[in-house]
Amino acid sequence: MIVSGNISKVRKVIKEAKRRNKLVGFVPTMGALHAGHMSLVKRAKKECSFVVVSIFLNPTQFGPGQDLRRYPKCFAKDTHLLRRAGIDLLFYPRQEAMYQRNHSVYVQEDSLSKGLCGKFRPGHFRGVCTVVGKLFNIVEPDIAYFGQKDYQQALILKRLVRDLNFSLKIKILPIIREKDKLALSSRNSYLSPGERTDALSLYSSLREAKSLIKKGERNPRKIINEMKRIILSKKGVKIEYIKIVDAQNLKELDKIRAPVLIALAVYIGKTRLIDNVIINVKG
Amino acid sequence: MIVSGNISKVRKVIKEAKRRNKLVGFVPTMGALHAGHMSLVKRAKKECSFVVVSIFLNPTQFGPGQDLRRYPKCFAKDTHLLRRAGIDLLFYPRQEAMYQRNHSVYVQEDSLSKGLCGKFRPGHFRGVCTVVGKLFNIVEPDIAYFGQKDYQQALILKRLVRDLNFSLKIKILPIIREKDKLALSSRNSYLSPGERTDALSLYSSLREAKSLIKKGERNPRKIINEMKRIILSKKGVKIEYIKIVDAQNLKELDKIRAPVLIALAVYIGKTRLIDNVIINVKG
Repeated sequence: MIVSGNISKVRKVIKEAKRRNKLVGFVPTMGALHAGHMSLVKRAKKECSFVVVSIFLNPTQFGPGQDLRRYPKCFAKDTHLLRRAGIDLLFYPRQEAMYQRNHSVYVQEDSLSKGLCGKFRPGHFRGVCTVVGKLFNIVEPDIAYFGQKDYQQALILKRLVRDLNFSLKIKILPIIREKDKLALSSRNSYLSPGERTDALSLYSSLREAKSLIKKGERNPRKIINEMKRIILSKKGVKIEYIKIVDAQNLKELDKIRAPVLIALAVYIGKTRLIDNVIINVKG
Repeated sequence: MIVSGNISKVRKVIKEAKRRNKLVGFVPTMGALHAGHMSLVKRAKKECSFVVVSIFLNPTQFGPGQDLRRYPKCFAKDTHLLRRAGIDLLFYPRQEAMYQRNHSVYVQEDSLSKGLCGKFRPGHFRGVCTVVGKLFNIVEPDIAYFGQKDYQQALILKRLVRDLNFSLKIKILPIIREKDKLALSSRNSYLSPGERTDALSLYSSLREAKSLIKKGERNPRKIINEMKRIILSKKGVKIEYIKIVDAQNLKELDKIRAPVLIALAVYIGKTRLIDNVIINVKG
């Protein structure tokens, strides 16, 4: 495994791999790797002959007062995991290498990014699109892998690839959950043991929504109310949003029709967690 | 010369050229080619072993009420000129191929694009950055050529390349002028014979500015007033702006110091023309 933070070096290594007709798979991350990230890495290893992972805690996707500073950093452990997974190149640039003092060019998505997390994290997806655009230009992957956990992000990045004509394919892989169904997230490390238990209500509410839809419920309002009831049964929990939207365009629905995304963002104490399910409704 | 509007085909042709170790030069245009464009093409031919020209009248860089509809179209003549120049590939995509119905991703520069033309054409440089970002991703050139006539645009695109890590070099080539010093522009075709004569005042004013600076004048206000006097001596002429700015960051100057850009936009009748000079002031 080559480890480098040098953009020119990384370009060179990848260019050489391409010259040898390698298929380049790419998993961009902010580090603090967990089994969710590693599922992307494993898939990349399976499908590609040269796998690049980036670790870059991207400042432009954090708003003021968000958790940029306390975001978990564990480079040694991350490196170990990636080496064991057999990736070819770990790119971990410094902030100054990625954003020059007078950086002034940004990539912005104007439609899919308006709702859900975008509404509560202004500028977040602009930061994501900008850094991913940069990373795509540096790594020039054939396939890039993202998790469904950040479904809105993945959909926006698919749009980015389409609208700016990046020559690569984005694959969205399923959410990886703990045994008790908590969705894996680097931010789970912020939770106290009590909060960790409360956090299970997120998936419980999604499971209940799924079950209601299976039973024939088609009114989003009724489903959301039931989800709220489940989540708010815990103390110290604050719902940022619960939305039922068209899984293709993220538009809110009056009536449930296939396929729908049920997505939520909830504060467990001071920790903001997100989770979602996609449901293929018949009829 | 291969002529195609098909993005996949164009990618394929260029990929094959790269496989044969060709150096790819790129000149993006909106058509209505003149000797200014052709000077870029000639330079590309000289420096690169595979030259791509695009002709695409980009709607996103025109504001409402601007001249998108009446912009001159002369594809047959353009093709003839490019064939004679010996380019390898002419890419002329249709609008629907470049912008899908629900296009929603844009590239925006937030600093250099605020002043000069950017102030009077809101959204213009967003459209330019977006389409050029797309074209760079499709063509993947080693060198892209732009004219100093659109100096602000060229500087913004250099910033785009730097900030989004495009793997290419931008070259800015000198303004090409008619014998009587009118800067070449596709929009000159809008001018009546009388307007054509009035338009000479643009360069006269720039020449006078240059001469004043050479004589030691360092007060931008005084120079601009003199330029205004020259331009407004013609009837039916309206000054949009005359600015003296730092040629590197486009910031307005209180006192002239090297290197400066003197740039102007003037309406001759209904036709908006721009022109500029860069002056390397000593001391």
